[in-house]
Amino acid sequence: MSSKIPVGILGATGTVGQRFIQLLENHPWFQVQWLAASDRSAGKAYAEAAKWNLTTPVPAKVAAMQVSAAVPDGRAPKLIFAALDSQAAKEIEPAFAAAGHAVVSNSSAFRMAEDVPLVIPEVNGDHTELIKTQKWYKDSGGFMVTNPNCSAIGLVMALAPLHRRFGVEKVFVATMQAVSGAGYPGVPSLDILGNVIPYISGEEPKMEAETQKLLGSLNGSGVAPADLVVSAHCNRVAVEDGHTESVSLQLHQPAQAEEIISAWNEFRCLPQKLNLPSAPEQPVIYDRAPDRPQPRLDRDRGRGMSAVVGRLRPCSIFDWKFTVLSHNTIRGAAGAAILNGELLRAQGYLN
Amino acid sequence: MSSKIPVGILGATGTVGQRFIQLLENHPWFQVQWLAASDRSAGKAYAEAAKWNLTTPVPAKVAAMQVSAAVPDGRAPKLIFAALDSQAAKEIEPAFAAAGHAVVSNSSAFRMAEDVPLVIPEVNGDHTELIKTQKWYKDSGGFMVTNPNCSAIGLVMALAPLHRRFGVEKVFVATMQAVSGAGYPGVPSLDILGNVIPYISGEEPKMEAETQKLLGSLNGSGVAPADLVVSAHCNRVAVEDGHTESVSLQLHQPAQAEEIISAWNEFRCLPQKLNLPSAPEQPVIYDRAPDRPQPRLDRDRGRGMSAVVGRLRPCSIFDWKFTVLSHNTIRGAAGAAILNGELLRAQGYLN
Amino acid sequence: MSSKIPVGILGATGTVGQRFIQLLENHPWFQVQWLAASDRSAGKAYAEAAKWNLTTPVPAKVAAMQVSAAVPDGRAPKLIFAALDSQAAKEIEPAFAAAGHAVVSNSSAFRMAEDVPLVIPEVNGDHTELIKTQKWYKDSGGFMVTNPNCSAIGLVMALAPLHRRFGVEKVFVATMQAVSGAGYPGVPSLDILGNVIPYISGEEPKMEAETQKLLGSLNGSGVAPADLVVSAHCNRVAVEDGHTESVSLQLHQPAQAEEIISAWNEFRCLPQKLNLPSAPEQPVIYDRAPDRPQPRLDRDRGRGMSAVVGRLRPCSIFDWKFTVLSHNTIRGAAGAAILNGELLRAQGYLN
Amino acid sequence: MSSKIPVGILGATGTVGQRFIQLLENHPWFQVQWLAASDRSAGKAYAEAAKWNLTTPVPAKVAAMQVSAAVPDGRAPKLIFAALDSQAAKEIEPAFAAAGHAVVSNSSAFRMAEDVPLVIPEVNGDHTELIKTQKWYKDSGGFMVTNPNCSAIGLVMALAPLHRRFGVEKVFVATMQAVSGAGYPGVPSLDILGNVIPYISGEEPKMEAETQKLLGSLNGSGVAPADLVVSAHCNRVAVEDGHTESVSLQLHQPAQAEEIISAWNEFRCLPQKLNLPSAPEQPVIYDRAPDRPQPRLDRDRGRGMSAVVGRLRPCSIFDWKFTVLSHNTIRGAAGAAILNGELLRAQGYLN
Repeated sequence: MSSKIPVGILGATGTVGQRFIQLLENHPWFQVQWLAASDRSAGKAYAEAAKWNLTTPVPAKVAAMQVSAAVPDGRAPKLIFAALDSQAAKEIEPAFAAAGHAVVSNSSAFRMAEDVPLVIPEVNGDHTELIKTQKWYKDSGGFMVTNPNCSAIGLVMALAPLHRRFGVEKVFVATMQAVSGAGYPGVPSLDILGNVIPYISGEEPKMEAETQKLLGSLNGSGVAPADLVVSAHCNRVAVEDGHTESVSLQLHQPAQAEEIISAWNEFRCLPQKLNLPSAPEQPVIYDRAPDRPQPRLDRDRGRGMSAVVGRLRPCSIFDWKFTVLSHNTIRGAAGAAILNGELLRAQGYLN
Repeated sequence: MSSKIPVGILGATGTVGQRFIQLLENHPWFQVQWLAASDRSAGKAYAEAAKWNLTTPVPAKVAAMQVSAAVPDGRAPKLIFAALDSQAAKEIEPAFAAAGHAVVSNSSAFRMAEDVPLVIPEVNGDHTELIKTQKWYKDSGGFMVTNPNCSAIGLVMALAPLHRRFGVEKVFVATMQAVSGAGYPGVPSLDILGNVIPYISGEEPKMEAETQKLLGSLNGSGVAPADLVVSAHCNRVAVEDGHTESVSLQLHQPAQAEEIISAWNEFRCLPQKLNLPSAPEQPVIYDRAPDRPQPRLDRDRGRGMSAVVGRLRPCSIFDWKFTVLSHNTIRGAAGAAILNGELLRAQGYLN
Repeated sequence: MSSKIPVGILGATGTVGQRFIQLLENHPWFQVQWLAASDRSAGKAYAEAAKWNLTTPVPAKVAAMQVSAAVPDGRAPKLIFAALDSQAAKEIEPAFAAAGHAVVSNSSAFRMAEDVPLVIPEVNGDHTELIKTQKWYKDSGGFMVTNPNCSAIGLVMALAPLHRRFGVEKVFVATMQAVSGAGYPGVPSLDILGNVIPYISGEEPKMEAETQKLLGSLNGSGVAPADLVVSAHCNRVAVEDGHTESVSLQLHQPAQAEEIISAWNEFRCLPQKLNLPSAPEQPVIYDRAPDRPQPRLDRDRGRGMSAVVGRLRPCSIFDWKFTVLSHNTIRGAAGAAILNGELLRAQGYLN
Repeated sequence: MSSKIPVGILGATGTVGQRFIQLLENHPWFQVQWLAASDRSAGKAYAEAAKWNLTTPVPAKVAAMQVSAAVPDGRAPKLIFAALDSQAAKEIEPAFAAAGHAVVSNSSAFRMAEDVPLVIPEVNGDHTELIKTQKWYKDSGGFMVTNPNCSAIGLVMALAPLHRRFGVEKVFVATMQAVSGAGYPGVPSLDILGNVIPYISGEEPKMEAETQKLLGSLNGSGVAPADLVVSAHCNRVAVEDGHTESVSLQLHQPAQAEEIISAWNEFRCLPQKLNLPSAPEQPVIYDRAPDRPQPRLDRDRGRGMSAVVGRLRPCSIFDWKFTVLSHNTIRGAAGAAILNGELLRAQGYLN
């Protein structure tokens, strides 16, 4: 045990913070040693501070840990997973990076900052290079790395293998997003029972811009966004976990259906090569059933870390259309950040 | 009472058949006088044959009516509203048309037939002209008129005013459809609770083709489909009633947001001019709230006969994107057919 | 119009406040003239202050009304319907009563106070007599009347006709309560999708005590609670509106099933005799279908003001068991208070 | 592998049949070797015959197995788990028992037969003794053992430790049952979205009678039912898996809350002593949180094999009330039968 890397969690009591704790229980490399949350929670035992909302119990060791205030007072370990809301992240995350911490953030606050890597290890693991341009890194060895929005990550995992082989030019995407994406208490039940909410504040611009950065390339000082256009429609539906997305796309080079399916099924990348503990064996799974993927049935594939694609068929306007699903609080949030943490360790950034 | 036009209902026990009965209660022109359903139901009292699923009670007079077999045995009135599934409709509807009945059908079986009008009175009320080319009409005075699929009707109501003013060229649409669209028992609860089903058999081709026919123009012998392309993604969600659709569209002529909103809000057509009893005062309503339309809150606007549009905003690929909602068993089924029946009467086809 | 009685609404922006506005639109006696809510809303136009959550639109006149602060500053009309949460009610309602207002409250704060009538007009309309014992009444002519908890009202409506005829001694009741009963934002969607919450804070003691007071009798200075025992189990389920309750009961005198059903169906009381505008024609409706009542299908019967009972069958421990359903924000809240207001007017308390 | 006991599954394609397959994958003692279903499925590969509805994939080996007809033609292994509907079970199960098979059935068809053990291993594992009185056993060595209804099992697990220590005399129970209990397609989504169905055909008498038999004692030729009375109210709610039950009970001897909680938490029985592979470490778990158990959060505790109890509090009519939850297709169906199979093996009935 003592040889594991200690980690801290900022925003430990929320929906994503809970997933961090769940996914880090029995992690082979990392061990939770420090938890922080809002002032309201600080000083309490974790079990008392958090309204635990997952189907596995709170790990006993974590239940008894005292929640700290979200300030870099020297007691937090170097590696910090951050699950703060965007407003809090704006102040707190830079303070930790400046104090020498490796901040692996799930928040949107700095995703589009020029010197902050926005990373999906399967897609653009090399973007961590940007760390070296961060002032924090030069000053204190601290730095910040982010993962994308929960709605962007499934889409980009489905696009990446096609973008490499055939070039993706245009993407229409309409999402049907789970309520856990809005945190807790999040979406009021009166708003979603028997209903659809065709609006999620700020979500569409995030999907559009993050996709371009994730599929972009490092240039001298930052990331040149990929030359593709995304048009996103974001909707909330009465699903607990799992974002489903209807996608149409136009490719640069023509591709046959079976070539596309192979591109998905055979997609293996850095995390698979490096054998990162949270990396799914198969990052993108194509399911040939006519009515899949479905959130209830498919969100847990690859322990919640695989994107599941189905229904590939010709599009009457663009080239192809399909459906993609990913688990929004695992692959789309806590699992994404943990995989980023594993990548950083493999790349030597945590030494 | 005695001066009302007697009507019959084919498929009277199903989800759409029940809506016919509900909407025709107290109708100023029509009066239900004959009900037919499958052999299993024939001979029973309606209240016993139907598992009534609506929130208003079965009209007492209808409850006591005996259900007939679905054959044109001379006892059915001239005007027949048909709510049959497609397979049954293929055999039964032509038999009634051949026997001299005016068959106003909600089924998909003959929608795309060259000589069968596919009609939304607000959009293409003149297409009823095709009736005169029907062999049935020439032989017996009987004929058939259809209304579109429940997913196409909301879309086309939103497109029609824009198509007239600016020309619509390309349409991307992703639907989130209510379970009542699948009839009863329809979608098993285990398939939809906490879930999305990204597939509805046959729905996408219907939406794409019906939209072209509805927005097309009469030529000599049939309808020349409109010169626009639709790409549809159809999904089922955990909503009882009301289909929500995310739409992107490309126009022929540039249009400002306020011009588009005016086109929607000011759209008035034949049914409004003719004062048809089921015509909504305002067929298309633009709601300026940032998170509307929503099925639970907006499906009943215009007594379920209006399409509600919201979230007009620029599209990064096409020109504009928006959300449209319509009540799938009222505007998208029984109400659509009744409005068609009213149009036919106003146009003199029922004499 | 000018001859209508002006009314004010305290807590006008919440779930129950909205129902008041909806139900008072076109009310033959009352007319909304004053709205108050929390300081956050005060000064805004109602349409801006309230997140309207009902399926009918905000009445135009109300939408434009300015929301006042919740203080008796002399501008509010005499008759006030109050939809405050219990904590706010404790301070605000007595202030209005002391200032001479007739406070018709839906809150739990004063329901069990000795001199405050807790009234269902069909059950204990004579309890308004207690008003005369209120200090407020003596001092300023103001007073307070309350209606029961949304879970108690359906139960008591089903019990009252049986208690009169046969005597009710013991009642087991297990509720399945709709989320609208918790207000807005209320129950988080993550807590209720695919779930049951077997706990509603404070609800069980309320049901047990209020039932005894409602079925009790006036004695000199207050109400002698009815001599019956209630054991309540309260649960929250994924239903928007409508509380369903499983009930077992023991009677003092033996009764046949048909006698019980008659007692329910024939139950007519003061509101029906007085022809109060919101009184349902039939306060308790027995439905003989084997699987009714159901919230989605039956909550709107009697315009949401009837209790619907079904499944009467022998109980292996007590005498009989049955299911009762009532609309929790109409009969269980706003409609209940409005009917109380109507009763007060008929009894002359508003002069 | 070769040393495992081969098992067959009758009704392998349904909801419970699928659970059998899921739970038997990697079972240390048993290995699925034969699958049977209706004639419609016979001859097909399992993956093709079954609409797989679980969140883990079909085991590859099972996917490829050919489905047999449900007849004892000599190719089925001795041990048969049966997940047939009651009507089919009436004919098929005795045929298998007569042909020498050990039929471990989840159906209700023979649960109340005098010579058929109705068993929960933690509660009445000794009732398997009845096997020896079965004619099948004497004739062919075949026999039948059953597990209770999914609604009875959670209740009885909560009652058993109390019955032993204090004696249970009267039980009032109201259930909120998951849709998976009705199989597939089962409950139509239109019936359950935003709704409660206060009726499940035949369920209440089953709960009442099975509880008495399960808690009863072997006498000479059968089981003397326990001397307690149960009054059950059964409801269906919009939950995928997990039956929640509100319970009031009267004890023979007085008991303190902490004594009752200890009785639950310390309850260990035959399956735990025998270390049966599917036995939960703790069969009954008392959760002290004020709002638990909840189906979404608690149904998987003890790998779905524990009953979770909460909210113990005094009852105003009987002695105590509480809530109990159990997973209806694991502890309430397939897992129950597998545990019965394990018990039979440990007791030597499978030799």
